[in-house]
Amino acid sequence: MNSSLHSYMPDRADRYFSADPAQRAVARSLFDTVANLPLICPHGHVDPQLFADASHHFGSPAELFLIPDHYVFRMLYSQGIPLEDQGVQPNDWAAGSRVESDHRKIWQTFAENYHLFQGTPTGLWLRDEFHDLFGITEKPTPENAQSLYDRIAERLAAPDFTPRKLYERFQVEALTTTDAATDSLEHHRTIRDSGWSGRIYPTFRPDKVVNDIDQPAWRAQIERLRAVSGIDIGDYASYIHALEARRVFFKEMGATATDHAAETPHTEILSDSEADAIFQRGLSGSASAADARRFTAHMLVEMARMSGEDGLVMQLHPGSIRNHNPSVFRRFGADKGADIPHALDYTRNLKPLLDRFGAHPSLRLILFTLDESTSARELAPLAGHYPILRIGPPWWFYDSINGMRNFFAQVMETAGIYNTIGFNDDTRAFASIPTRHELWRRISCDWLAGLLVQGIIDDEEAFSMAHALAYGLAKKAYRL
Amino acid sequence: MNSSLHSYMPDRADRYFSADPAQRAVARSLFDTVANLPLICPHGHVDPQLFADASHHFGSPAELFLIPDHYVFRMLYSQGIPLEDQGVQPNDWAAGSRVESDHRKIWQTFAENYHLFQGTPTGLWLRDEFHDLFGITEKPTPENAQSLYDRIAERLAAPDFTPRKLYERFQVEALTTTDAATDSLEHHRTIRDSGWSGRIYPTFRPDKVVNDIDQPAWRAQIERLRAVSGIDIGDYASYIHALEARRVFFKEMGATATDHAAETPHTEILSDSEADAIFQRGLSGSASAADARRFTAHMLVEMARMSGEDGLVMQLHPGSIRNHNPSVFRRFGADKGADIPHALDYTRNLKPLLDRFGAHPSLRLILFTLDESTSARELAPLAGHYPILRIGPPWWFYDSINGMRNFFAQVMETAGIYNTIGFNDDTRAFASIPTRHELWRRISCDWLAGLLVQGIIDDEEAFSMAHALAYGLAKKAYRL
Amino acid sequence: MNSSLHSYMPDRADRYFSADPAQRAVARSLFDTVANLPLICPHGHVDPQLFADASHHFGSPAELFLIPDHYVFRMLYSQGIPLEDQGVQPNDWAAGSRVESDHRKIWQTFAENYHLFQGTPTGLWLRDEFHDLFGITEKPTPENAQSLYDRIAERLAAPDFTPRKLYERFQVEALTTTDAATDSLEHHRTIRDSGWSGRIYPTFRPDKVVNDIDQPAWRAQIERLRAVSGIDIGDYASYIHALEARRVFFKEMGATATDHAAETPHTEILSDSEADAIFQRGLSGSASAADARRFTAHMLVEMARMSGEDGLVMQLHPGSIRNHNPSVFRRFGADKGADIPHALDYTRNLKPLLDRFGAHPSLRLILFTLDESTSARELAPLAGHYPILRIGPPWWFYDSINGMRNFFAQVMETAGIYNTIGFNDDTRAFASIPTRHELWRRISCDWLAGLLVQGIIDDEEAFSMAHALAYGLAKKAYRL
Repeated sequence: MNSSLHSYMPDRADRYFSADPAQRAVARSLFDTVANLPLICPHGHVDPQLFADASHHFGSPAELFLIPDHYVFRMLYSQGIPLEDQGVQPNDWAAGSRVESDHRKIWQTFAENYHLFQGTPTGLWLRDEFHDLFGITEKPTPENAQSLYDRIAERLAAPDFTPRKLYERFQVEALTTTDAATDSLEHHRTIRDSGWSGRIYPTFRPDKVVNDIDQPAWRAQIERLRAVSGIDIGDYASYIHALEARRVFFKEMGATATDHAAETPHTEILSDSEADAIFQRGLSGSASAADARRFTAHMLVEMARMSGEDGLVMQLHPGSIRNHNPSVFRRFGADKGADIPHALDYTRNLKPLLDRFGAHPSLRLILFTLDESTSARELAPLAGHYPILRIGPPWWFYDSINGMRNFFAQVMETAGIYNTIGFNDDTRAFASIPTRHELWRRISCDWLAGLLVQGIIDDEEAFSMAHALAYGLAKKAYRL
Repeated sequence: MNSSLHSYMPDRADRYFSADPAQRAVARSLFDTVANLPLICPHGHVDPQLFADASHHFGSPAELFLIPDHYVFRMLYSQGIPLEDQGVQPNDWAAGSRVESDHRKIWQTFAENYHLFQGTPTGLWLRDEFHDLFGITEKPTPENAQSLYDRIAERLAAPDFTPRKLYERFQVEALTTTDAATDSLEHHRTIRDSGWSGRIYPTFRPDKVVNDIDQPAWRAQIERLRAVSGIDIGDYASYIHALEARRVFFKEMGATATDHAAETPHTEILSDSEADAIFQRGLSGSASAADARRFTAHMLVEMARMSGEDGLVMQLHPGSIRNHNPSVFRRFGADKGADIPHALDYTRNLKPLLDRFGAHPSLRLILFTLDESTSARELAPLAGHYPILRIGPPWWFYDSINGMRNFFAQVMETAGIYNTIGFNDDTRAFASIPTRHELWRRISCDWLAGLLVQGIIDDEEAFSMAHALAYGLAKKAYRL
Repeated sequence: MNSSLHSYMPDRADRYFSADPAQRAVARSLFDTVANLPLICPHGHVDPQLFADASHHFGSPAELFLIPDHYVFRMLYSQGIPLEDQGVQPNDWAAGSRVESDHRKIWQTFAENYHLFQGTPTGLWLRDEFHDLFGITEKPTPENAQSLYDRIAERLAAPDFTPRKLYERFQVEALTTTDAATDSLEHHRTIRDSGWSGRIYPTFRPDKVVNDIDQPAWRAQIERLRAVSGIDIGDYASYIHALEARRVFFKEMGATATDHAAETPHTEILSDSEADAIFQRGLSGSASAADARRFTAHMLVEMARMSGEDGLVMQLHPGSIRNHNPSVFRRFGADKGADIPHALDYTRNLKPLLDRFGAHPSLRLILFTLDESTSARELAPLAGHYPILRIGPPWWFYDSINGMRNFFAQVMETAGIYNTIGFNDDTRAFASIPTRHELWRRISCDWLAGLLVQGIIDDEEAFSMAHALAYGLAKKAYRL
């Protein structure tokens, strides 16, 4: 191998910046001013229990890096390595089946397939976490796999390697979780009562009581909503009342936002009697798939109404066909790397909601997309007009260097940066949070550097935009 | 702030070129050969009245830059600043409402929000116009707003700051307006009769007598068409006859092109009796939305037929949902920054038109898009095959540095530059025309420079392609 | 003309690499390690007869470069030069019409319009073939056209300028043709029997016996299938049996893959009785267009089943509206540059096939696209999950520098390179094969160089990825 190429690799401090010397120098100067800003984490999926228990530890290296991370195991699965061999636990009914429980063996399999992550964002996150959290500079190989495992395991067991300590070390300023509308928020209460100074807030996510009204699981969710709210939910009006009560509770517990997934951004306004009729069919188990689509579409508008009233920032991220692989879903459940995007239309679908609330003075609606073709065509023009709209950062499949670069290129010219909201790490993996923010900050500074060296913005603008993208926009957008 | 970044900003003469030193040097050399070519402006929305009155002046700085420019006021609106506060005039019925009439106050609001335009094409146009027309090099700020206003106002009042003088100073070779089929073209006649040497031509735009046959406004338009053509429009045949007569008149007045907007590129061929039946339903107020869609689709084909016969170049730019925000539309009317693109299909929709006229020897059809995903997928393959087709430049939301770069990247490999038509400024803002052409010329030269430094084209090709993109293609495409 | 720009053009050895000096240096080092690897050509349209006849020659320069190449003649056609003037032969019924038969005159027309190919991939291939095969460094011009013709013609007549000699000189390791399911494979047999060492394999392409069951031509194809298989095809079961028999034959003749075109990726599973009912309607000439769509959709799943059983790698490339121009099709037949892409949905359309076979242990399904918007949105997420899926390289309209760069940018982060399959030249033009592979190898090395200079991959990864993209992935994907 011709190792002379090594000299063309940048210093670690300059990684992910453009190779052009001028742009790189500017990117570095900008990044220096934002690298140590506190982290605003307003949208993510970290388990609050991590912080409820002051002495929580993360388990084995495989439990930290592999078993819960669908970015990792779906890549090996795509090359023919069964999920069972990667320690992914099947549902109860399949519990009799063989699952690898030796975490060292799971780690070995990962190391043997580490080349699959070449050039991928997962590869970058893993490498940077190995480096930053564990001081590891070697790539995993079949040969060094077990010794890396030992080094990581030793560090994981250290007394300072708890979520709370890491929260402080990472300089997190605020972190939100995502919580079902029916969640008791007991861990959030424990955290609050503990006197610990970390700011961990819930986010109200009502998908399970709003979507799929034609499914038996929805009725079970309504039962839970009834139990947790103490409201007898017999009709649409009491259902709305229960949801409003839950939002009050979430706000009391620190929530500043809600979060909504849907297969499409379809919105529609039903009359109260239409909504009630569908609701009743849902309760009696006779709702159709069309009922479910219309009810979800209606409830998005209804949630916008509530957000206008109570000030919770509304987030909508449509576009994924969930659980696309039925055999994986049946065997392992949701969130197993088999959610696949499809083409979207925001322009027509959001119109009913925007007709009613597009210029509402206290509503803020943040839109995400999994269909990049909508960014320049629809999202930027919409957010560049409607006062309530902001565009969320590149999300899932696009939370990558190219995804971020495309986002800047496709959105900013038409919408301007002030109609966007900075960064979301959107992760379950708490330990990866600084790595993700650093990638965003590097790529946003490199983008700004590119604008500066082309004479599009000046130095004063570059510094203020870098700060906004790294910190200010997120804090303001989520009212944190 | 670290002002050392200032040294990385290019000289003003090199702005918008790549930062790579070799590419920048080549771009500069190419640009030098096209920077002073005359301007061909074959598609735009300048008011011909500006030139009919030899001593016209532009009004206040707010009237020149802000109040009529939906690029500017929609950006402030998107951040919660009402259109009324920006001096945008509501419709008559709402005339009682409060509208800011103090142009200095409107200007102050603009200056206070100037940061919203960071990194946007509007920001570049404003900056370059301030510099080139008014010698202003400072950015507007709350502090300097009124002194900038004074400086601009003084210059606007100068005797040489008339549209005619600017036309000559800008070296415009020909400029077309866009005019309703029912327009009397009185201003064009005044210009012609005045003996002034400037070439200002009308463009035939029949949208209002062709689209929305199901709306009452259409019947009013037909009434105007009857009045202006002197033809008694009682059926489809006489309607066609009236349109043909108007085209003859437009040609006599110098028109070389027609212009057509539609929500989609749908085309369809109706029999004369079908067309007449829909037409009659239109006249009697009983046409349906489906009638309207089919009639528009049919009339696009019919307009292609007429263009094949009379030689007027046909332009089609589908893809916008007009007046997406009903409360803004009701209150302020059309063209208020609320036209939002949606996904398009040209391949299937244009087939009926192309089946009939795709290789017609004297028809030329120029296609624009607001859905970039169609550029490489549909427009380039279509224009790379059908003799009548040419691809228009990036238009609206894409009339930006990235929009132009994407256009070059997505279209040129498959279509070749000779199936494109150079630049359109497509603007109402006459004073911004040189700025827009300069941006196009800079970005196209930078694109060519990129091809040259990668060994894709040679120097001889680069120079001839630069000339074609800046001047030759537009002149030839529009038969000017 | 300012010829000083010439100094900014790269050495020929560095062509198509980035202009950034560091990236270029790395690209050159990587390319040096793969430039001379053997060529794997697993998907293409070269006529096997070229190799059956050991002393075959290519005819005139016009026959080699122009008359059979729809990339060339469609570009001139798009600018108004009739296909007849370019020597393209009409169908029999139109044989009385005037067609240019003077190959020198056809060549002259080409040379006079050579500028149309500026900046296009066809322009690059022509230039590189002229250089590499004929030692020609001048561009064709009206003046030098005939002398270039002479030089090419002389070389074409040389005894070593046969397909077999070129195959060896090009270092082709394996080359596959594309063959109708009813093909006798006589040329493949002749090649095999000749004792020549070249590896020329057929590919099983059953489109004509699977698609368009509502057309009379389909019935004629079934007749041929009956004849060549010796199976009496009276129902769906015997039809399936005949197809299976043909696949056995193709495998015996060296095939490792099948190839399938379809207008969309729609898949659907019919019961045997439904399939038989449609099949019977096809035989009796009473099938509908809806029948045809469903039958194609079903047969894609059925072909996947067969590939799972016999191990032939399945390729699917949907997305083209074939023969979009009816007058060209009627007059000249298929493959005349008038196949136009349209928007696609893989996520929903492929679900029935993937539900059944997505994790099949011996099935491999390679997906191509003509709609780039699906690459990042659908193909990369699908291939990054399902074990059977791999993504094919940019194909037709995207087999260009930008197409390849987009492919790397859109696909690799989510799918990883190991869910892609390296390069396909996909060409009829045997003499252009090394040129096409060299372009791919240059662009892929330049992409890797870009990753390295940004610190995304290291030198060891770059070298191994370059080898995989140039050689290893294709060989493995096609089981060659």
